[in-house]
Amino acid sequence: MSLIVQKYGGTSVADLRRIRLVAKRVAKTYDQGHNVIVVLSAMAGITDSLIEMAYTAAESPDKRELDVLLATGEQTTSALLAMVLKSMQYPAQSLLGHQVEVITNQCFGNARIMDIKAGWIQQLLADRNIVVVAGFQGCDERGNITTLGRGGSDTSAVAIAAALKADVCEIYTDVDGIYTADPNICEKARKLSVISYEEMLNMASLGARVLQIRSVGFAKKYNIPVHVRSSFSEEEGTMVVNENSGMERLVVSGVTHDKNQARITLKKVPDQPGIAAKIFTPITKAGIVVDMIIQNTRAEGQTDLTFTVPKNDFKRAFEIQQKIAQQIGAEDVFGDENIAKVSVIGVGMKDHSGVASTMFSTLARENINIMMISTSEIRISCIVEEKYTELAIRVLHSAFGLDDDKS
Amino acid sequence: MSLIVQKYGGTSVADLRRIRLVAKRVAKTYDQGHNVIVVLSAMAGITDSLIEMAYTAAESPDKRELDVLLATGEQTTSALLAMVLKSMQYPAQSLLGHQVEVITNQCFGNARIMDIKAGWIQQLLADRNIVVVAGFQGCDERGNITTLGRGGSDTSAVAIAAALKADVCEIYTDVDGIYTADPNICEKARKLSVISYEEMLNMASLGARVLQIRSVGFAKKYNIPVHVRSSFSEEEGTMVVNENSGMERLVVSGVTHDKNQARITLKKVPDQPGIAAKIFTPITKAGIVVDMIIQNTRAEGQTDLTFTVPKNDFKRAFEIQQKIAQQIGAEDVFGDENIAKVSVIGVGMKDHSGVASTMFSTLARENINIMMISTSEIRISCIVEEKYTELAIRVLHSAFGLDDDKS
Repeated sequence: MSLIVQKYGGTSVADLRRIRLVAKRVAKTYDQGHNVIVVLSAMAGITDSLIEMAYTAAESPDKRELDVLLATGEQTTSALLAMVLKSMQYPAQSLLGHQVEVITNQCFGNARIMDIKAGWIQQLLADRNIVVVAGFQGCDERGNITTLGRGGSDTSAVAIAAALKADVCEIYTDVDGIYTADPNICEKARKLSVISYEEMLNMASLGARVLQIRSVGFAKKYNIPVHVRSSFSEEEGTMVVNENSGMERLVVSGVTHDKNQARITLKKVPDQPGIAAKIFTPITKAGIVVDMIIQNTRAEGQTDLTFTVPKNDFKRAFEIQQKIAQQIGAEDVFGDENIAKVSVIGVGMKDHSGVASTMFSTLARENINIMMISTSEIRISCIVEEKYTELAIRVLHSAFGLDDDKS
Repeated sequence: MSLIVQKYGGTSVADLRRIRLVAKRVAKTYDQGHNVIVVLSAMAGITDSLIEMAYTAAESPDKRELDVLLATGEQTTSALLAMVLKSMQYPAQSLLGHQVEVITNQCFGNARIMDIKAGWIQQLLADRNIVVVAGFQGCDERGNITTLGRGGSDTSAVAIAAALKADVCEIYTDVDGIYTADPNICEKARKLSVISYEEMLNMASLGARVLQIRSVGFAKKYNIPVHVRSSFSEEEGTMVVNENSGMERLVVSGVTHDKNQARITLKKVPDQPGIAAKIFTPITKAGIVVDMIIQNTRAEGQTDLTFTVPKNDFKRAFEIQQKIAQQIGAEDVFGDENIAKVSVIGVGMKDHSGVASTMFSTLARENINIMMISTSEIRISCIVEEKYTELAIRVLHSAFGLDDDKS
């Protein structure tokens, strides 16, 4: 007998018909003799319409109260699933965030889990109940309702799996696993059967939005195998596991892209100590996240400095830099919104040289100019012109042997 | 500075526009220097549609889970009102049933309040916060969410007022007070400025459904003045208070009616010990509430027995009695669904004789036949033919000097 945590996303519980399908799948797992904890999201679209309601009620809704409002979404689906399971003669009970004692900090709207007591869950499991948990929500130590931010139900599921030492955390979603590239762009993308936490962390942040990134960090920390799979089929999905658990060792396991990028260049910046702080402090204070930074030294005590920001922060960042350029005596500021980041990711890179040169020469062969480069232990990212994104993905996917030749 | 509990019903919080109006009224009370606790219902219609959803999910929804689902209704309105108040720069905070620690028994769907800890409310009030409480809900000692039954928000409000020794509990609703009769039937009905708990208890159970009857019992027990008033006007409503608090002493303060009545008569029942138990035990076991019972002794060791039941239980009750009649050897069973109960109510009756005879002679003058009579200390009820209900109400209203001569 295993302990299995199953998390179902908004599209899987979008209406009563689908909730009944979820109930059947849960019952099947239970009938196989496993203990089952189900973690649910709100019905697809509900969280958005609650947020809209809040912003109609108040220009800038109080964050504590917004969490009280949002928490009703998962409360609704949890109660409904438990009802359906009970009507099917399965012993089931719903628990809300505060009943599970998912204790978070007080950061309303984006709270972090500090502790999960889970005593009530354990009691229910001991009596062979199916426990249906409202995801996305917790409470602070005083008992205020908090929510965990977008995709927070993934984190709820993994954290509960960790607290109860579950054998696996299954994430049911509307895609059937993690792909080597976006199948909408790259026809030959194929589903990975296994991927490491580290790779997934790099994938998630680069745009393959299947799992909330924070949940992957949790899974890695507590070494919980996460099975990402479709709630609409019986097929196996992708296992996200520790790097060393006998994975197939692809050198590169995925090619990802991010079009939400814009680039700002300051020309002929005086090359003095403290100049970087002068440039980046005002950007950071404005709440803008800088991704890549490149500095090219020129002659004559001057330097060119280029960095990227999210596209929707571009205008603000550009205006700030125009002021700063004057203050520090830079010659000019250029901006470019038509760029994209293309990355190859793989834990195999650690042991294989030549990934970077394969990437660069592959892009060069197609006359795709590389504007910026950044690398980490298991990832190489290049900024290219936005119009080349799809082409870059396809040729890199081929070059690293990822193509599914069956399709 | 007083402590005022204000309860707003479903029509008063039916949409954001009305919630804003509630916020203004709450703010006004707060600005007068009072401490304010607001208790809210769900938006009008929401509880019904949640119940419908539950009955679509499961033929007979689990009661515990139904309460989890229903509790979202008041959670929503409470969060929204708190948001609106905060956006108006008032310090406000919502609290749910379990956060207030409204501790109930485990009777899901119709739980009774056992205790209210209210420590969190007190802290918030001490800091001059407006506390917005989700009505209708509580939790049992284990922490399971419970609800208090139809109209339960009234009971929440009065119980919280009692726990915190509030100066008054204001019940805002879509009527502007308690009337001497149903204004739809009796044009000359007038609003009472004061009524006693006892009268209200008799009124509520007889059909003047303004307040949940259980809340009146609570108010009486803890001597909490309840002010029933309209949320759509500034006018004073009706104060429900202890009988001795300087009320205007009308002999009769109201005439009420109840058309949800049906009558069953067993003819020539053998007049033996234990016969009543044989007749009524099966009815009670079937969950049918018997209201009035009359037994006329006949000659020859036989008796006629007549009783009333709610109209929608009539068929079941009649079938049960047909079987029993055979078993006990009664001659026949008659039924009549076309009846109504008309009552006059008033604490003044205790000190005034002649109320009954006025009632009987008034009805006689109109040729309205009285089929059954029952009386209590402050109430006289007559069963009449249903078609005479409106006429009976109007003539009794006049006869007891209740007519509003201005209208």
